Amino acid sequence: MKKISLLGATGSIGTQTLEVIASHPDKFSLEAISIGKNIELGLKQINEYNPKLVSVQFKEDYDKLLNEIPNTVKLVYGQEGLEEVASNNDADILVNAVLGSVGLAPTLSAIKAGKTIAIANKETLVTAGHIVTEEAKKHKVDLLPVDSEHSAIYQCLQGERLQEVEKLILTASGGSFRHLDRTELKDVTVADALNHPNWSMGAKITIDSATMMNKGLEVIEAHWLFNMPYEKIAVLLHQESIIHSMVEFIDGSVIAQLGTPDMKVPIQYALTYPNRLQLHGKKHLNLWEVGKLHFAKPSLERYRCLYFAFEAGSAGGILPTVLNAANEEAVSLFLNGKISFLEIEEAIERALNEYENIALPSLEVIQHIDKETRDFVRNVMASK
Amino acid sequence: MKKISLLGATGSIGTQTLEVIASHPDKFSLEAISIGKNIELGLKQINEYNPKLVSVQFKEDYDKLLNEIPNTVKLVYGQEGLEEVASNNDADILVNAVLGSVGLAPTLSAIKAGKTIAIANKETLVTAGHIVTEEAKKHKVDLLPVDSEHSAIYQCLQGERLQEVEKLILTASGGSFRHLDRTELKDVTVADALNHPNWSMGAKITIDSATMMNKGLEVIEAHWLFNMPYEKIAVLLHQESIIHSMVEFIDGSVIAQLGTPDMKVPIQYALTYPNRLQLHGKKHLNLWEVGKLHFAKPSLERYRCLYFAFEAGSAGGILPTVLNAANEEAVSLFLNGKISFLEIEEAIERALNEYENIALPSLEVIQHIDKETRDFVRNVMASK
Repeated sequence: MKKISLLGATGSIGTQTLEVIASHPDKFSLEAISIGKNIELGLKQINEYNPKLVSVQFKEDYDKLLNEIPNTVKLVYGQEGLEEVASNNDADILVNAVLGSVGLAPTLSAIKAGKTIAIANKETLVTAGHIVTEEAKKHKVDLLPVDSEHSAIYQCLQGERLQEVEKLILTASGGSFRHLDRTELKDVTVADALNHPNWSMGAKITIDSATMMNKGLEVIEAHWLFNMPYEKIAVLLHQESIIHSMVEFIDGSVIAQLGTPDMKVPIQYALTYPNRLQLHGKKHLNLWEVGKLHFAKPSLERYRCLYFAFEAGSAGGILPTVLNAANEEAVSLFLNGKISFLEIEEAIERALNEYENIALPSLEVIQHIDKETRDFVRNVMASK
Repeated sequence: MKKISLLGATGSIGTQTLEVIASHPDKFSLEAISIGKNIELGLKQINEYNPKLVSVQFKEDYDKLLNEIPNTVKLVYGQEGLEEVASNNDADILVNAVLGSVGLAPTLSAIKAGKTIAIANKETLVTAGHIVTEEAKKHKVDLLPVDSEHSAIYQCLQGERLQEVEKLILTASGGSFRHLDRTELKDVTVADALNHPNWSMGAKITIDSATMMNKGLEVIEAHWLFNMPYEKIAVLLHQESIIHSMVEFIDGSVIAQLGTPDMKVPIQYALTYPNRLQLHGKKHLNLWEVGKLHFAKPSLERYRCLYFAFEAGSAGGILPTVLNAANEEAVSLFLNGKISFLEIEEAIERALNEYENIALPSLEVIQHIDKETRDFVRNVMASK
């Protein structure tokens, strides 16, 4: 029986993680969850999945929920609550599916508590890859990817040796606007951008998919997860999202992981690793029904965010934090109708040009730069 | 340093094996080779690659070569010579790339001598899979596939558990006539059939590719190599021969092995397993240059030989031997202009209908049935 705690239970990855856990009651048990703003869904999850410990974001939600949940459930809140869900319980594995930089500190606590980490939180590796991987090594803790791309690479690397890898090849659908050139991107709307062709995901990640910042952040994550230099990481456009990623080896052999687009596959793999289990309700990949798979090379002029990510990643230091924070803020401004789609890139470029780099930043520096970058982007884009 | 002996040095797999060995003189040394009818090439190989032991097929070639080779090379001949190359020397690994059922007995000798077996000889597993796999298990000897498809599956299974496999998916180019329907197959010529779109191979295997008997024999090999029931083995048409085969697991995840069509990849992998080495002169797979990959379901009415293979394989006993011997004889008759392309299938079907099955046949029974089937096919097709 694997005991699981889950940060970000009400999000897209969180709800699917709960479904996977519930589908194998003989294999998994749920220890603890954290829920965010969607208290209504959180309450439903508490009643349905019976965690022993629940953390909410705000004190007022805590007060409200106290009277609505069974008294067998321990309720906590705030950053302390998040840390308790992450580390202060019997869980073997922490699934970190919380959005944003708030996921970083709890991950480090869980690593120190010796828990296996299933990471769906990008910030953990993008902004603090050097700290997180160092800590994981020190505490002999596995970092298991939940992203479909990194899970694919992780699966392709089973039984293989990292030093025999020639290249990691991340596939990218190209997002909602893959058939548009840059001049056609000027007037796209939020609604257009949220219409992803293959995956059903949250708003932020769907926009990141359209700008390809999503892939850029994944490149940085791959760098840290697999200890791979940036020149050994490539991105390949593959519109069907059937091949989730690949690894090329020094003998020219390429191993790929494929499947119908279904986040439950990487979620369950992280929970069952190194074994596999039947996935209930899985959709078989029938390639003869798909018929054709397409591939193309992404242009770094067309996809500026991918270029920024390779640059910021290679430079290291605080630049990945700047990249990520500027992107989060800019996407939020775009979703709120404050800036245009192409201004997302502009905001990121301005932020990256604003900072002198700092090598090996501490967690405090990262958090400071993260906040400063958000303020900078808000101000500079408001004053345009 | 891995010491290698090689049966069938002058064939397509043999010559490429020698090139791979020569490209890593610090990793591989050549102990022994057997050469077939191409004595001229054999002599060249002896001078170039310096094996310690050489076996030729016929006494007259032995007599002729004795005076032409360095006296540091030990020369032997015939079935005994083949066995000596297979087992009676210092080699760690036997590459069995000899054509036809003559490869069977030496493989068993090598297994008994505790040598790792790299199998490119189909008969070894198709006709005597139950004996060969049992012996390999008994002597704790690895059976490493050299076929691109089986090597692909072997690679996909690294770090995985066989009991978590849902399906082995062998890809098939469809051969020279994949765009023709059965009525169009009536008048195809030997020259047409030898023109394979992707791979440069020997004549027999190129015809087998056009009839898809090649894939049928591979299905039977896969059954034995991976201890997999036939209902868990599928064939997928994939005209580009880029995905060499795949494995679907119980969680819906599919692992595939890809590459440019180059037999040196599986050959070298068998020699370096479980590690990989740089492959000199390798052609990188650039999927954006390939652009598209195509897939389709093969029709068992269109590809009758594939149907026969599944039937004979599932029935087991002597039927795979009948299938294989009838096919070898029929292909030989076709290559010599004695029968038409579609009569290859007819010959096989007649042979399969001729025999009562015998369960768990001994090596002697297999060899007897093999010879009898060849005679039957020659006679029945001559009397048409």
